[in-house]
Amino acid sequence: VLKVTWDVDAAEKGGYEHFMLKEIYEQPKAVADTLTGRLSDDNRAVLPELDWALGMARGIDRIHVVACGTAYHAGMVGRQILERLTRIPVEVEVASEYRYRDPIYTDHTLVLVISQSGETADTLAALREAKARGARVVAVTNVVGSSVAREADDVIITWAGPEIAVASTKAYTTQLVALYLFACYLAQLRGAADPATIEEVLAGLRDLPDAVSKVLDTAPAMKAFAQQFARKESAFFIGRGLDYVAALEGALKLKEISYIHAEAYAAGELKHGTLALIAEGVPVIALATQDHLYEKTVSNIKEVKARDAHVLALTWTGDEEMASVADEVLYLPRVSPWLAPAVVAVPLQLLAYYAAVERGNDVDKPRNLAKSVTVE
Amino acid sequence: VLKVTWDVDAAEKGGYEHFMLKEIYEQPKAVADTLTGRLSDDNRAVLPELDWALGMARGIDRIHVVACGTAYHAGMVGRQILERLTRIPVEVEVASEYRYRDPIYTDHTLVLVISQSGETADTLAALREAKARGARVVAVTNVVGSSVAREADDVIITWAGPEIAVASTKAYTTQLVALYLFACYLAQLRGAADPATIEEVLAGLRDLPDAVSKVLDTAPAMKAFAQQFARKESAFFIGRGLDYVAALEGALKLKEISYIHAEAYAAGELKHGTLALIAEGVPVIALATQDHLYEKTVSNIKEVKARDAHVLALTWTGDEEMASVADEVLYLPRVSPWLAPAVVAVPLQLLAYYAAVERGNDVDKPRNLAKSVTVE
Repeated sequence: VLKVTWDVDAAEKGGYEHFMLKEIYEQPKAVADTLTGRLSDDNRAVLPELDWALGMARGIDRIHVVACGTAYHAGMVGRQILERLTRIPVEVEVASEYRYRDPIYTDHTLVLVISQSGETADTLAALREAKARGARVVAVTNVVGSSVAREADDVIITWAGPEIAVASTKAYTTQLVALYLFACYLAQLRGAADPATIEEVLAGLRDLPDAVSKVLDTAPAMKAFAQQFARKESAFFIGRGLDYVAALEGALKLKEISYIHAEAYAAGELKHGTLALIAEGVPVIALATQDHLYEKTVSNIKEVKARDAHVLALTWTGDEEMASVADEVLYLPRVSPWLAPAVVAVPLQLLAYYAAVERGNDVDKPRNLAKSVTVE
Repeated sequence: VLKVTWDVDAAEKGGYEHFMLKEIYEQPKAVADTLTGRLSDDNRAVLPELDWALGMARGIDRIHVVACGTAYHAGMVGRQILERLTRIPVEVEVASEYRYRDPIYTDHTLVLVISQSGETADTLAALREAKARGARVVAVTNVVGSSVAREADDVIITWAGPEIAVASTKAYTTQLVALYLFACYLAQLRGAADPATIEEVLAGLRDLPDAVSKVLDTAPAMKAFAQQFARKESAFFIGRGLDYVAALEGALKLKEISYIHAEAYAAGELKHGTLALIAEGVPVIALATQDHLYEKTVSNIKEVKARDAHVLALTWTGDEEMASVADEVLYLPRVSPWLAPAVVAVPLQLLAYYAAVERGNDVDKPRNLAKSVTVE
């Protein structure tokens, strides 16, 4: 039996209309709590709970990231930052596929599992399979003492506090933080080739609670957009690179609670089929936070505009081009592009929230879904 | 300038109402043509165009598969069969993401690109990037003399003949054949660990033209299903393992030409969000051809049935359980589960075709799409 030691107070709504809204607004604190004690004064990631030997860290030659749902999207971000900082090949897969696929393990494969509850059935089964095959398993979870936390070799706790709403918000952003920290930690140990990016990520993490706090100011704009948007039955989210991952998470959030059929697409893939669905008035949410992909994304926005889609673009404050391309632009406080998924997540959560409210749905308990999927 | 040497006759509809239908019906021949001369009497895959040295084949330690759209789905099947038969880790990615992601190459990385036209801009750029980074590139393409064919180190031609309809059908099934052959060829050279599966795949390939021919008999059933289905605005395709890949391709086909918002999901992922979209009467096409995943898929079908979805299940002739679970069942001539994607593709192509006809769409030239995407 798992004993939960959180306060009763923490499980109340504290003046917010729904738990989800409360949890969205708790993100600056959740991110700060997850960073506490993990950034040293000399700008290093510190994870005392790992305390890995150099030889072990340097021996890792392959990483499998395994998770479900929103945590899988965190894993997709993790993959990109891990590959960039460590140059270890990383694959990421949903747990329900991974566990039945006979994955290839080297003698030094690291498996990283991510689960808010630490009880997700498929993720737990994947963890057990990986251990049986001799892999070392690191878990990122929000629940101390959960099955995943108990069975993994190493645990990185996300200090998000209790998440009550079914749709995950603060658990996701703190999972991102844990993965950024872990990637920097591993890269530092291995003495990898890209110290400038490590410094950029760590500096960005230090400022992240503030950036997440500022981006909450987009709530009125997202509410207004959600109101015109809520009558639609389909919506598309597009982006490239980390913006594609952020698009996947934005689309999932909207699906879960608004029941609008939202789908995310790698922006460059639209032309290979899905563009046929873009007709007059179809809402497209376009993410453009990755500077090196910006012009390519603008081209894709022009493609959907040419079919009369209604485009809301999210990009950085200071941008001067997007207003002439998209119908509406939401400007975000600039952070390192590596950290953009943690900032972009917030307005997309708010969009889903207000669309669900507008449609009269039960925001905290959407139909058909459970908070933790403890059955297969 | 590329000279096309196909007959003018071959570019006519030959009595079919649309090129797409003609091309669907050409698949038994296209598959047979792609197999011609490539299966030896002693049951080996023969690819004289490769003629690889043993040492080179045995040195490959990583494979990247890169493609767009339908060819990307062929690549996802290729990944699974390559990993199973060669135990080389394979990653597969859409070209528009791959080319900007700074992929990790070992000294012996093989890159496999797939493009019907051989002119797909993102795929060609990925090929060039891979070559610049020192990787050996194998191309699977339908056009002799195309840019991709000219620039790759090795070329495996799919003998599908000219494909005129924008939505790819026979190019896809022949891409699958080329990938099965290549996986067997590479595994034979390397002397890999799983001769029984190689034999199963090769025997299955020998019978595949016949199986594809038989499964064309599902046309009346798919037409009837498409007619009741064509008024819907959303549809979901679910499956696990190779059925998940087949689901992705089925959903893409439906999107492209019917403009129904179809989306595929790994069946085990539904509970992590998308299940919220499943309400009374929502069409769900469930694929259950993978014997080792059958019971898990049945559980997922029961989940969507519990929300009153309307389920069409595709499984093998002889199945006795599915009729009591799904609303409608389409029975397919049994082939090796490894080859199932090539068989399942056909009724899903027919479903998309008849749904598009029912909706009065321009089947061969769907709105917004081009046959070959030669711009980024």
